[in-house]
Amino acid sequence: MTIFNNPSRNTWSELCERPQLQLEFLEGSVKNILARVQQGGDYALKELTRQFDKVELSELALNTAEIQHAVNTIEPQLKSAIQTAASNIEKFHRAQLRDVMKVETMTGVSCWRKGMPVEKVGIYIPGGTAPLFSTVLMLAIPAKLAGCREVVLVSPPDKQGNIHPAILFTAHLTGVANIFKAGGAQAIAALAYGTESIPKVNKIFGPGNQYVTKAKQLVNQQGVAIDLPAGPSEVLVWADESATPTFVAADLLSQAEHGADSQVMLVVNSTGLAEKIQQEVQQQVTTLPRKEIAVQALRNSRVIVLEKETDALDFVNTYAAEHLIINTKNSDELAEQIINAGSVFIGNYTPEAAGDYASGTNHTLPTNGYATAYTGVSVESFLKYITFQKISEEGIKQIGPVVEVMAEAEELIAHKNAISIRLKTLTT
Amino acid sequence: MTIFNNPSRNTWSELCERPQLQLEFLEGSVKNILARVQQGGDYALKELTRQFDKVELSELALNTAEIQHAVNTIEPQLKSAIQTAASNIEKFHRAQLRDVMKVETMTGVSCWRKGMPVEKVGIYIPGGTAPLFSTVLMLAIPAKLAGCREVVLVSPPDKQGNIHPAILFTAHLTGVANIFKAGGAQAIAALAYGTESIPKVNKIFGPGNQYVTKAKQLVNQQGVAIDLPAGPSEVLVWADESATPTFVAADLLSQAEHGADSQVMLVVNSTGLAEKIQQEVQQQVTTLPRKEIAVQALRNSRVIVLEKETDALDFVNTYAAEHLIINTKNSDELAEQIINAGSVFIGNYTPEAAGDYASGTNHTLPTNGYATAYTGVSVESFLKYITFQKISEEGIKQIGPVVEVMAEAEELIAHKNAISIRLKTLTT
Repeated sequence: MTIFNNPSRNTWSELCERPQLQLEFLEGSVKNILARVQQGGDYALKELTRQFDKVELSELALNTAEIQHAVNTIEPQLKSAIQTAASNIEKFHRAQLRDVMKVETMTGVSCWRKGMPVEKVGIYIPGGTAPLFSTVLMLAIPAKLAGCREVVLVSPPDKQGNIHPAILFTAHLTGVANIFKAGGAQAIAALAYGTESIPKVNKIFGPGNQYVTKAKQLVNQQGVAIDLPAGPSEVLVWADESATPTFVAADLLSQAEHGADSQVMLVVNSTGLAEKIQQEVQQQVTTLPRKEIAVQALRNSRVIVLEKETDALDFVNTYAAEHLIINTKNSDELAEQIINAGSVFIGNYTPEAAGDYASGTNHTLPTNGYATAYTGVSVESFLKYITFQKISEEGIKQIGPVVEVMAEAEELIAHKNAISIRLKTLTT
Repeated sequence: MTIFNNPSRNTWSELCERPQLQLEFLEGSVKNILARVQQGGDYALKELTRQFDKVELSELALNTAEIQHAVNTIEPQLKSAIQTAASNIEKFHRAQLRDVMKVETMTGVSCWRKGMPVEKVGIYIPGGTAPLFSTVLMLAIPAKLAGCREVVLVSPPDKQGNIHPAILFTAHLTGVANIFKAGGAQAIAALAYGTESIPKVNKIFGPGNQYVTKAKQLVNQQGVAIDLPAGPSEVLVWADESATPTFVAADLLSQAEHGADSQVMLVVNSTGLAEKIQQEVQQQVTTLPRKEIAVQALRNSRVIVLEKETDALDFVNTYAAEHLIINTKNSDELAEQIINAGSVFIGNYTPEAAGDYASGTNHTLPTNGYATAYTGVSVESFLKYITFQKISEEGIKQIGPVVEVMAEAEELIAHKNAISIRLKTLTT
C-alpha cells in the first residue's frame, strides 16, 4: 500500500480512481453466447455448459431429490448460522416495505402510489470453489418480501454436475424452488430470453465474473432490468488513533482477499498510525489461505494521510466507497456527515464482514463510485411503484381549468380537449 | 386504428409490440458529439449550438436579467395555473419522503437506512415550438424535495438565443438558478463531463429527441446515472359501455398528438363500442392543430376487443402501459388488479392530461413495457439510500460466531479473522 501524505485536492480524483474493468474485448464472444442461447435454447445452453463447465447435463432443472439431499448434507452449525443470518436480513428488509401512500392534492383529486412486485426475477449465484450462499440470502429474501411471483436461481454446476449444497440449502430456506444449473454469460442469456426450461425474467440480479457482468450490461441495453452496474468490490477504512490497528488491518484484508482487482483504501490522520496499520497488514496477510490474491489487491491500494478531519471527510465523500468503515473516536458524528457511500460500518466492533453475512443489511452495493447516484439492493429493487389517480366530477371542475391553460401554453390542444369535453358536460 | 377481435393469447406479444426506436445509426454521430464536448468544453458546445440551433451564443449561462424578464412576461393566468400545478406536485412528492428506518436485528446490532440526495443532477428540457415547462415541474420539484445540492437545467436556445419564458418562469418558481442554453446530444455531454460553464452532474433526467436519448444511453454506459430508458410515449385506454365515447376518443387523441411514433391502444369488450369510439376519434381529429401527427400515430394504433374481463385484465397487464386509463363501471376494482403500468387513471373524469400537468403525480414514466420492472420518476429518483450499521461489544459477541461459521464455509478466512480478532479481545 502506497502512502500519500496530505495529498492536495487536485490529486484527489486520481487517488479515487478504481482499477478499470476491461470488458470491451469480451463483447464479441459474449454477444455470440447470447445469440446462441437466444436461438438454441436448452440445447445451446447444454452445449455451452459442456464447453465451459466441462460437464454433460441431462437436465438443467434441479429436482427435489437433489435439493433434499443438500438440505440433509449441511452441518447443523452452518444451518443454524444461515438461519440466524436469514432472520436478521428478513427483519431489516421487512422494515423497508411501505404502505400505499394516498394524497388528496385538491378537492376531488386523489393520487396514490403503490409498490408492486417485479413479477419474475432471476438470481445469478457464482459457482467455483467458494459457494456464495450468502448472496442467495441477500437476493432471495427481499424478492420474497416484495412478493415476486417467480424467483429463478441459476448457478453453474461443478464438474460432477452439482450445485454446492450450501447454495441449495439457502435457496430452499428462502423459498426458492426454481433452480437451474447454468453459469456464465449463457445463464444470463437464458434468464433474459427464456429457454424451454428456464423462464424469461424481468430483472436480473447477482454478481459474477467478467462474462456475467458483460452479459448483464448487454441484455440491459436490450431492455431487461439489472440490479446495479458492476465493478470490483472495495472498502475504505477511515481510522484514527482510537482504532485498534489489528482490527483495521483485518478489515482491510477481508476486502483484499476478494480478488486481485479489489480496492482497499485507508484514510488516517497521521503517518505513524498508517505505518502501524501497515505493519499489522504485513503480518496478518502471511497467515491467509488466499494470501496471493490479497497481496495483489494490496498493490493497487492506497493509504491517504489527511491531518485535518474536514479534509478527510471530503475525501471520503469524494471516493464514495461501496463499504465505508468509520473507526474513529467520533465515528457516530462523522457517519452523520456521510453523503456518498454504499454501506457504512461505525466503530471499532463493526467489521464489514458482519454486514457481508449476517447483520441484516444487504451486501449487494454500488461499487466504482456509483454510490454517488445508485442505491444498493433492497426490497425496493424487487418492486416498481405504480401511481394511481382518481378525479371526481368536483375534482375535474377544480383542476380542469388549470390543465386547459397549461396544455394550451404547451400547444397540445388535444390534451386541452380531453378536459374541455368533460367540463362541458358538467356545466350544462 | 386496426381492430383485433378476441385475439388469441399467442398473438398478444405481437400485439404488445411498440414502434421500435432505431437509434443504432445515430451512434457514430452522437459519439462524435460527446467526444467533441468532452475535449473542447464550452468552445465545442458553442460551435455545436451554431451548427444545430443556428444561433451564435456569447454566454451559455442565463443571467438574472433574462430570467427576471421571463418572469415578468408570463401572463397572470398561466402563472397561476403553473403555481397550482406546482403546489399539487409538491404535495404528492413530499409525501414520498421517508424517515430514517432503524432496526435492531439482534441485541447490540443496529442497522438503518437513510435517503441522501444525489448531489448534482441535470435536467434536460426540450426546446422547439412547444415549451415543455410542465417537465420542469416534474423534475425540479422532486429534486428540491430530495435536497439535491445542485440542479442544473439545460435547454436549447431558439434562433434568437432565448429559452422560452414559460420554462424560465417555471425554473425560477421551483428554485432552479443554474440554467444553460444547450440542447441535443451536446447538452447531455456537457452534463456528463462538465465544461468551463456547465457543472458535471451525477444523474441526468429529462425527455428529448433521438440524439438526446442516444446520448443519455451512451453516457449511462460510461457511469453517469439516468432517469429511465426511453421510448415513445403511449396510452392504453380500457373502456366498457359505461364510458363516454367522446371522452375516450379525446383521451386517445391527447396521446396521439405527442408524436408520429406515439402508441395508442384501446381495449374494449365489444366491437360496437370499438366502432363508436373510432367514429368519435375520426371526428375529433379533424379539429386538431397537430392532426397530421395524430393521424400518423393512429396508424400504428390498435383496438383490442376482448369480451371476457379476465382476458382484458391479463392483456392490460401484459402490455404494461406507460399510461393506463381504466374507464369501466368497475374501474376501482380493476385498478386494484393492475400489476404492470406506469400510471393509472381511474374512471370517466380522470383523463391522462390531468396527470400530465397538474394532479400531482409525475409524468416521467416507464414506456416500452419497462413498467414491468421500472418505476417512474419520484423523489426517490433524486435520492440514493445508504445503509448504516453499528455493533456494540455485546452485539459482536452475538453475531460474531454466526459470521465466523458462514465466512469459513465460503472459504473467506480473512472475513472470519476480522471477527475472531475482535472476539478474542473481548473474551479474555
